[in-house]
Amino acid sequence: MEMCVKKYKKLDDNDVKFLVDLLGEERVFTGENINDDYSHDELGGVSKYPDAMVEVSNAQEVSKIMAYAYKNNIPVVARGSGTGLVGSSVPIEGGIMINLTKMNNILELDEENLTLTLEPGVLLMDIAKFVESHDLFYPPDPGEKSATIGGNVSTNAGGMRAVKYGVTRDYVRGLEVVLPNGAILEFGGKIVKNSSGYSLKDLICGSEGTLGIITKIILKLLPLPKKSISLLIPFPNLDKAISTVPKIIKSKSVPTAIEFMQREVILAAEEFLGKKFPDNSSDAYLLLTFDGNSKEQIEADYEKVADICLKEGALDVYISDTDERKESVWSARGAFLEAVKATTTDMDECDVVVPRNRVAEFVKYTNDLQKQFNIRIRSFGHAGDGNIHVYILKDKLSDEEWNKKLSDIFDCMYKKSEDLEGAVSGEHGIGYAKKKYIFRQYGDEYMKLMKNIKLAFDPKNILNPDKVCE
Amino acid sequence: MEMCVKKYKKLDDNDVKFLVDLLGEERVFTGENINDDYSHDELGGVSKYPDAMVEVSNAQEVSKIMAYAYKNNIPVVARGSGTGLVGSSVPIEGGIMINLTKMNNILELDEENLTLTLEPGVLLMDIAKFVESHDLFYPPDPGEKSATIGGNVSTNAGGMRAVKYGVTRDYVRGLEVVLPNGAILEFGGKIVKNSSGYSLKDLICGSEGTLGIITKIILKLLPLPKKSISLLIPFPNLDKAISTVPKIIKSKSVPTAIEFMQREVILAAEEFLGKKFPDNSSDAYLLLTFDGNSKEQIEADYEKVADICLKEGALDVYISDTDERKESVWSARGAFLEAVKATTTDMDECDVVVPRNRVAEFVKYTNDLQKQFNIRIRSFGHAGDGNIHVYILKDKLSDEEWNKKLSDIFDCMYKKSEDLEGAVSGEHGIGYAKKKYIFRQYGDEYMKLMKNIKLAFDPKNILNPDKVCE
Repeated sequence: MEMCVKKYKKLDDNDVKFLVDLLGEERVFTGENINDDYSHDELGGVSKYPDAMVEVSNAQEVSKIMAYAYKNNIPVVARGSGTGLVGSSVPIEGGIMINLTKMNNILELDEENLTLTLEPGVLLMDIAKFVESHDLFYPPDPGEKSATIGGNVSTNAGGMRAVKYGVTRDYVRGLEVVLPNGAILEFGGKIVKNSSGYSLKDLICGSEGTLGIITKIILKLLPLPKKSISLLIPFPNLDKAISTVPKIIKSKSVPTAIEFMQREVILAAEEFLGKKFPDNSSDAYLLLTFDGNSKEQIEADYEKVADICLKEGALDVYISDTDERKESVWSARGAFLEAVKATTTDMDECDVVVPRNRVAEFVKYTNDLQKQFNIRIRSFGHAGDGNIHVYILKDKLSDEEWNKKLSDIFDCMYKKSEDLEGAVSGEHGIGYAKKKYIFRQYGDEYMKLMKNIKLAFDPKNILNPDKVCE
Repeated sequence: MEMCVKKYKKLDDNDVKFLVDLLGEERVFTGENINDDYSHDELGGVSKYPDAMVEVSNAQEVSKIMAYAYKNNIPVVARGSGTGLVGSSVPIEGGIMINLTKMNNILELDEENLTLTLEPGVLLMDIAKFVESHDLFYPPDPGEKSATIGGNVSTNAGGMRAVKYGVTRDYVRGLEVVLPNGAILEFGGKIVKNSSGYSLKDLICGSEGTLGIITKIILKLLPLPKKSISLLIPFPNLDKAISTVPKIIKSKSVPTAIEFMQREVILAAEEFLGKKFPDNSSDAYLLLTFDGNSKEQIEADYEKVADICLKEGALDVYISDTDERKESVWSARGAFLEAVKATTTDMDECDVVVPRNRVAEFVKYTNDLQKQFNIRIRSFGHAGDGNIHVYILKDKLSDEEWNKKLSDIFDCMYKKSEDLEGAVSGEHGIGYAKKKYIFRQYGDEYMKLMKNIKLAFDPKNILNPDKVCE
């Protein structure tokens, strides 16, 4: 089944003319007119310009470009906001970059079916604002609010509320997708159940733009919970904090979110935001949210959890029940990534996910690596769902030292996550940067299967080549 | 990519010897020793014996059989309880049937990760009993409790509680799968988030045994809701009943289940069970359940919904808050399929799913078909999730008349569901019986993609051939 053709056609004047005839000059960018932004995402160190960057406004345009590229063997990469962290939207082989950010219309709110139909370029922050104004709720809550929903679907983004509500995939009811050959297909729809053949919708979710280009999305919504409350719980050390999480899960309470954070990261966020966190005197914290419609239920839940935490060694329990107090805690949490980044010259991250009762072991291991490799490592993340973001900081290392240490540390971390029955990525994807590690973890038979699926969609391998399983 | 080989090897004495050497004589059945049950599922009219039926007890045995069958080009079908309704487990091409019902061990309850690991042959009824004894909850609730969990995963079974809790896929965290070539792979795991390559787990869910054989399943559990209540709400006619459902959804209440039923079906169930339903005086009913942990919240929810129903023309609202009263209503609901079957000589069913606000239109259409074709049609189902079960009854028709009418009626119904932006199957699958209708609805490009995915897993097309997309 190996039909991969690696000799792509280099874009020439005729190809550019095709694009200009289709889209008009003002939507086709080549050479020096392509902004540097389009040569990379948020991953450092991997950069490549497309030969042409085009702005599209509908599925028909995407379809015509794909049909042309397919016929002429030109590589194509789709791009949203470019907030990815693993190089998924970097056009490694050049070719055409399809910029979907102008396809940013919310098309329909259907309150009888509780669905929202939208174009892929709508920003996450705009979805939240829109649905909440209708007393509705789109639960997935990844930290990067300027990401597009198309990007979120493509990486199956997770976010803070996965503990209670699940991830992006769980809220995708239907997709319109342009295949590599230009065909426009619809997978799923407004329907709630579906057992009509293989779930192509679920295959597209998380496929990082390698199987098709998403041009329309139907999301499932929930009623907006009427009340929520956050608890900030200081612990004497990180181990005690994280070890409490499986006990919370076992207690049959269902928090919306359980985040863990350490003092250094909080201090960095205070510095970065120029405002104080409610408390920074302890070594480690859990930050929990509970939501629901009944004050009584939320109180019963969080009181039980507060008791468990105190019993496990928590130093205090701060309750944030006003919007203002919640904002002060969560805005700091939202700034962690940027805040840590601001303290160093360069950094790279690991986004492993492990079973929830193995988080403490994994974090302890990364702390040990810090000493072993004499390097700063910062971690925070979703203790409640086992998804940990670990940042390795370059600081004053030379490029050579940095690359060597980074590679060795990643090897150690991903090996550890395998040992703990985890996976390479909880929510950021594999893209270009993490391929080595899924190949190692999954082995040949598994990766051959993925590659065969890629070829089932894209026999000429023109769509986002060199990613995920290649 | 067409690599399908249709000339299968016919099982001979050597092949049987291989199976006996592997499993022992007492687990290999051939010829007249194969019980009639194994030649069909619950779908009438499609029947074929395997050449050998074997009982397996672990993944290694399945792997060895598949590797042998792959090498020798022998078709293989996996089978659980055989409660399917579309012929998915009928061995159309003969060959080996792998009976997984003896792999029925619950392997591990992990309360820190809220997961249950089990073998595919565990029955749905045994899962419910087991987890509830630990104060935990496996939400999917398909009507047929003697189905195996492997079968449920393979059809992505839905059930009554999909309105609030979703379907089987939403509770599958991990799978161990034997590929057609005998390789044993693990997809997913105990992890809550996963963005590590294509979601092969989600592809296996709902693939009706055509891509691999499931040998282990990790399910996600929830805390058991502490309270539940059912409402039985009579309406003067079905249209008024079903038209109320989108208004309930729009009201932002979240019932656990919303079923609709008609008087004739209730009478049949009373006759079948030999006991009375709480009320049978009205033409049509909605049956709703609410669950949660707080009595106040449930009451607030159901009072709002009761008000909506009364405003929309409901004749009364019967509240069942004791186990006994709930049992009397839901046991009748559980018996509908068998009860309707008992009133006729033969029947076939349609399991379409439409957007929730189109259910009334679809049911009205099937009622019109009843007159148009002069045939009895009975329907009931999941008004809250748009999944309708429509039964066409043979009664005294000759085989010839029956086949003709059935085919014409199915053509009409599936056409109608397409017009309403529905899908062929909400939860029973495509199997052998419904292939024609997904081909018609999805078209060539879509089905070619499915077929390519099938070949990515099964290049020799030996696993459950002639199903879903062939």
